[in-house]
Amino acid sequence: MSFEVNVQLKGRFVFFATNNVNKFNEARQILGHSRVAVGMLRIKSLEIQSESLEEIAKTSVLEAFQKYKLPIVVEDAGLFVEALNGFPGPYAAYVYRTIGNEGILRLMKDIDNRKATFKSAVAYFSSDLTSPICFEGTAKGKITLEEKKPAEKEGFGFDPIFKPDHTSKAFAQMNIVEKCKHSHRAAAFRKFAKWYK
Amino acid sequence: MSFEVNVQLKGRFVFFATNNVNKFNEARQILGHSRVAVGMLRIKSLEIQSESLEEIAKTSVLEAFQKYKLPIVVEDAGLFVEALNGFPGPYAAYVYRTIGNEGILRLMKDIDNRKATFKSAVAYFSSDLTSPICFEGTAKGKITLEEKKPAEKEGFGFDPIFKPDHTSKAFAQMNIVEKCKHSHRAAAFRKFAKWYK
Repeated sequence: MSFEVNVQLKGRFVFFATNNVNKFNEARQILGHSRVAVGMLRIKSLEIQSESLEEIAKTSVLEAFQKYKLPIVVEDAGLFVEALNGFPGPYAAYVYRTIGNEGILRLMKDIDNRKATFKSAVAYFSSDLTSPICFEGTAKGKITLEEKKPAEKEGFGFDPIFKPDHTSKAFAQMNIVEKCKHSHRAAAFRKFAKWYK
Repeated sequence: MSFEVNVQLKGRFVFFATNNVNKFNEARQILGHSRVAVGMLRIKSLEIQSESLEEIAKTSVLEAFQKYKLPIVVEDAGLFVEALNGFPGPYAAYVYRTIGNEGILRLMKDIDNRKATFKSAVAYFSSDLTSPICFEGTAKGKITLEEKKPAEKEGFGFDPIFKPDHTSKAFAQMNIVEKCKHSHRAAAFRKFAKWYK
């Protein structure tokens, strides 16, 4: 376990339990706007197998709280492709590591219905609460026909194959400010920040 | 929660926490040979997200034991396809429900390396033990080029697209006695039964 806290901001603070710096940067972008300081708590939190992101995130945050006794948020996200009956769903991370974007595009070959939804669940718990509270955000969009990302960029998860509605760019083609206008994670953290203040 | 116990057998008994009657029948087939009575404990046990079946099964069995205080086995299985970097792995159940056998065959189209391994982890815990004990079984084989199952049979999971080595039939084309000669689950339960007696 290691953590770093952004101490420039005054006021409330929270720890975000994650090992994913991309997720952390999105959260910091949103929470910073609301003047909520956020520290990255680099721990591997327990994730249960469930089709409910809310259930996964709530279980994780309780377990992390029990260990560290800090005000903690945990985020769980999933990509739900309509024509694939919700696959890869909450198991997006494992699916990404194994079959990757190329696997999703292969499964979607010749399929016209390309509708997909990214969902995010942000769960918070601290000693002030009796049970965790959860905020959800969604981003509706389409699976692209091919990977779209700037050559110099690594891309994060399924961002290169997801184009949110009402934009012409895939997530991977946006900078962090643009992405936070459309992203499921930003939407969930925005709800959390509003409540937290 | 409901359960039914096979009371014809004398001697030791164990509860198998599962909602899957196909899994239960395989376990009963193996344990019956060893004169271990097995009851089906129809509960939804906690499953964590992990790439280690052993870790998933051990966590589940401890959680189930804490609730029911019975001698319990839990089994977790996965299908690891070499050319897909181990996909679908421990998330086989969700992948089966969403993209199914057809999805795996689509991902494997034009791929020559069809090697795959089914793995099973059987974890046991009772009040006699201080920590759960786990037994693993594997079945090496190939992903078939198409689904193979008798017309009248529903098939169980990925059984119609997995052909174990040294046989000409897919798992779905075998009766339970044949399947138990080759299956990962039978191998794990056989090790458990040997130890349990």
